[in-house]
Amino acid sequence: MKMADNVEGAPEAPAEKTNAQELSPTVLEVAARIAEEVDAMASQDHGIAGMTYFYDLAKGLYTTRVQELRAARQSGKKLVGVFCNFVPEELVLAAGAVPIRLCSGCQEPIATAEEVLPRNFCPAIKSSLGMLLANSPHFALADVLITPTTCDGKKKMAEVLAEHKPTWVLEVPHTTVTQPARELWLAEMRNLKKNLEEFTGNRITKKALRAAIELTNRRRALIRRLYEVRKRPAVPIWGRDVLLATNMWFHDDPERWVRQMELLCDEVEARKEGVRDDNAPRILLTGSPVILPTWKIPRLIEESGAVLVADEICTGAKVVWDPVYVVDWSMDEMMLALADRYLMNSCACFTPNRARIERLLQFVEQFKASGVLYHVLMGCYIYSIEARHIERSLMDKGTPMLTIETDYSTEDVEQIRTRIEAFVEMIQGQRAG
Amino acid sequence: MKMADNVEGAPEAPAEKTNAQELSPTVLEVAARIAEEVDAMASQDHGIAGMTYFYDLAKGLYTTRVQELRAARQSGKKLVGVFCNFVPEELVLAAGAVPIRLCSGCQEPIATAEEVLPRNFCPAIKSSLGMLLANSPHFALADVLITPTTCDGKKKMAEVLAEHKPTWVLEVPHTTVTQPARELWLAEMRNLKKNLEEFTGNRITKKALRAAIELTNRRRALIRRLYEVRKRPAVPIWGRDVLLATNMWFHDDPERWVRQMELLCDEVEARKEGVRDDNAPRILLTGSPVILPTWKIPRLIEESGAVLVADEICTGAKVVWDPVYVVDWSMDEMMLALADRYLMNSCACFTPNRARIERLLQFVEQFKASGVLYHVLMGCYIYSIEARHIERSLMDKGTPMLTIETDYSTEDVEQIRTRIEAFVEMIQGQRAG
Repeated sequence: MKMADNVEGAPEAPAEKTNAQELSPTVLEVAARIAEEVDAMASQDHGIAGMTYFYDLAKGLYTTRVQELRAARQSGKKLVGVFCNFVPEELVLAAGAVPIRLCSGCQEPIATAEEVLPRNFCPAIKSSLGMLLANSPHFALADVLITPTTCDGKKKMAEVLAEHKPTWVLEVPHTTVTQPARELWLAEMRNLKKNLEEFTGNRITKKALRAAIELTNRRRALIRRLYEVRKRPAVPIWGRDVLLATNMWFHDDPERWVRQMELLCDEVEARKEGVRDDNAPRILLTGSPVILPTWKIPRLIEESGAVLVADEICTGAKVVWDPVYVVDWSMDEMMLALADRYLMNSCACFTPNRARIERLLQFVEQFKASGVLYHVLMGCYIYSIEARHIERSLMDKGTPMLTIETDYSTEDVEQIRTRIEAFVEMIQGQRAG
Repeated sequence: MKMADNVEGAPEAPAEKTNAQELSPTVLEVAARIAEEVDAMASQDHGIAGMTYFYDLAKGLYTTRVQELRAARQSGKKLVGVFCNFVPEELVLAAGAVPIRLCSGCQEPIATAEEVLPRNFCPAIKSSLGMLLANSPHFALADVLITPTTCDGKKKMAEVLAEHKPTWVLEVPHTTVTQPARELWLAEMRNLKKNLEEFTGNRITKKALRAAIELTNRRRALIRRLYEVRKRPAVPIWGRDVLLATNMWFHDDPERWVRQMELLCDEVEARKEGVRDDNAPRILLTGSPVILPTWKIPRLIEESGAVLVADEICTGAKVVWDPVYVVDWSMDEMMLALADRYLMNSCACFTPNRARIERLLQFVEQFKASGVLYHVLMGCYIYSIEARHIERSLMDKGTPMLTIETDYSTEDVEQIRTRIEAFVEMIQGQRAG
C-alpha cells in the first residue's frame, strides 16, 4: 500500500468545505433523487414498519447522517472514505475511525466528472469522482481516501482523487489462488493496519480488533437471517427493500444498524404472507453494483411480476455474506483471518473467478431462483466479459439468464422494462408449458 | 503464475489447423492490408536499402515467417505465444523455445471477436482474440499462450483464450514501487522459468540464460543506435520506418534481426540528408500501442509535414530501450535482474506511473520534440486517463500535446489528418511568431 501519486504536489490539509445547510446544487439533486426513489419503494412496502428506519437513513444521507459524521469528526475521530469491498471495516473501526463508503450511484455529477475522466468510463467511477468535484459532504468530511486497485477504472481514478485528498492505494492482487498473491495481500493488510494507526494516533489493540471482528460478524449473520426468509415460497419482503437495508450497512453506525436490522428480521420472519403469489418467478440479481439512487434494475424486476429473492452483487450480499473465521484471537491470526476473508470475494477482477460461478449456482438452488438477471454497467469490462461463462454455467443447470447493460441515466427505463417483462413471461411460460 | 481458468474443461492438444497455402479469408485480408501499408511506406522511403528486409519480413508474416515457424516446430522446438511486454523473451529463448507476439492491429477479425467480447472493448484485445478465431497460423502454431494481467481486457481475454489453447496467466502487480509487489513479480518470473523448463523439457542453464540476455541486450543497443540518429536536425529516416523495423523485433529470428539491424544502422548513420527540412516540426508519439497494419497515426504525422522523431509506445522504443543490468552471472542474480528490468516499464497499468512522465520529458529534450501526439485506442482506459497528467507535465515545459482517440477502422483517417495538420501548423506558427 502506498500514497497515490499526486502529480500536483502534496494535497492540502483536508478541508470541510460544505455543511448540511450549504449543499451544492448537484448534491441537492442527488438527495432529491434518493428521496423520490425511496418514497416510491415505501409506498408499496406492504406495511413493514422495520423498513422505515432504513428509508429515513437513506433519505438523510446528505443531511442527518452528515450531521452525525461531522459530530464524530469534531469529537476527534478520523473519517476514512472507502471504495469497493476490499477495505476491512474491522481495521478502520478498531483504529477508532469511521468508515464512509464513497461509491456513488447517481447520474447528476457525471457530466462534471467527464471533464476529467474519459466518457466511456463506467458510471460508478465517473459518478464517484463527480461527487467529490460537486463538493459532496461525504468527500469533504473524509480525512483520507482508501482506493483498492479493483479494476482499471478504480486504480486510475485514485490518481485523480489524490489531487484533492490524501489517498492510499490498496493493491488487490489479480488472483486469489497463488501463494505470492496471498502474501502480497497479507502484506497490504499489515501496512493498512500500520497506516491507520499512524494516521489516527490510535494503536489497534487485540481487544479492539476482536470487538470489531465480532461486531462485523454479527452484521453478517443478520444479513444471512434477512436473506433466509426469502427462501420461503411466500417471500415476505420485496428484494428492493432488502437491498436498500443491506446497502445502508455502508452508511450507518454499525451498532445501531445491528439493532434496527434485528427488529426488521423479527418482523419479517413473523410475516406469513408473501409480497407476491407463491408462483411468481424468482429472480437472482448478479453483476455490476447497484447503488442508490439508481434503483431501476431491482425495481423493474419486481414491477414485472417477479420477486427478487437474492443477489450476488458487491453492494448486496456478495461480500457481507461470509464471516471472518478466527482460529485464535492472537493479532497474527486475526490479521490472517481478515486477509483471507477479504480475498474470499467473487469480484470479477479476479482470474480465475470460479468462486463466483459456484456461489451463483449455490444461490440459485438455495433461493430456488427461476432466472438470473445479469446487470452490467456500461464500460465495466470485467463483469461484462464474465457474463458469457456465467450464462453457460447457468444454462447447463436449466436456469435462464438475461443480461442488461445500462448506466445511471433514466432514459432506458422503459426499454429495460420491456426486456425484463419478456424474460419474466418466458419463465412463466416455461412453467405453464 | 497459473493456468487460466478454462470453464469448458481442459483444452485439447494444440492443433495446427492451417498451413500457409490455406489461410482463412480473414487472415488473407489482414496480409493484404499489411502489404498495402508496407508498399505505401516503401514507395516513399528515400531509397534506404536496409529497410527492404524489414518490409519483406512484414509482408511475409503469414507466409514466409509461418513456414519458418512451422519448420522450427517440426524440428522439435516449442512455440510460445506472448502478449504485451512483460514476458521476458530471454527466458523463452533460453528454454530453446520460439516466442511469437500475438498482439494484433487489424480491423478484419474484430466483428468475429465481438460475438464473444463486449463491443466497447479495446480493439487490440478484440483483434487479438479475433485472429485466434480466424485461425491465424500464429495462434495455430503456438503450443502455449502467456497472457500478462496488464489491463482488465488482457486479464479477462485470457479466460476466453484458455477455451482454445493452454494459457498461462502471468500476474503483473499494480505497482512497481512496493516490496511485496516486487517479490510477487520475482516469484512469477521463477514460476515462469520452471513452467517453461517443464513444458519444453529443456533445463534453463546459466550459460543459455546468459547468452539470451546478452543477445537481447545487443538488440536493445541497436534500437538505441537507430534512435540516436534521429536526434540530428536532419533526421535521415522516417519515423514510420523505424517503428516498423522495431516492431519486427517481435516477429523475427533474433540473430538475423541483429544482423539486418546492424546493416540498417550503418546505412542510416552514413546518410547526411534528412527526410524533411531541418525546420520541420518534430513529433514524439506516446500512448496505446501501434500495431501493423494500423499504421495511420505514424503515417499521418509524417504526411502532415512533420517527422516522427521518437516514441514511447509498447510496440516501439518503450520497453526495448533499457538493457538488463546483470551484476554477476549467477542464476539468482540473472533472475533478479530480469525481474527488475521487466518491471521497469512505464505501462499505464501501473500506479503511480511517474516513470512514464520522466521518460517522456527526457525524450522530448533529447530528441528535441516540438510536440507530442498521444494515441488512445478506444476503450483503453489506462492510457486514456493518464493523458491529462501527461499533457499538464508537458505544458509546464512548453511542449504542446494532441490527443487522438481512434480504433483500427479507416473511417476516421481524414478527420485525424485534419487534426494532425492543424497541430503541426500550430507548432510551425509558434516558431514563426
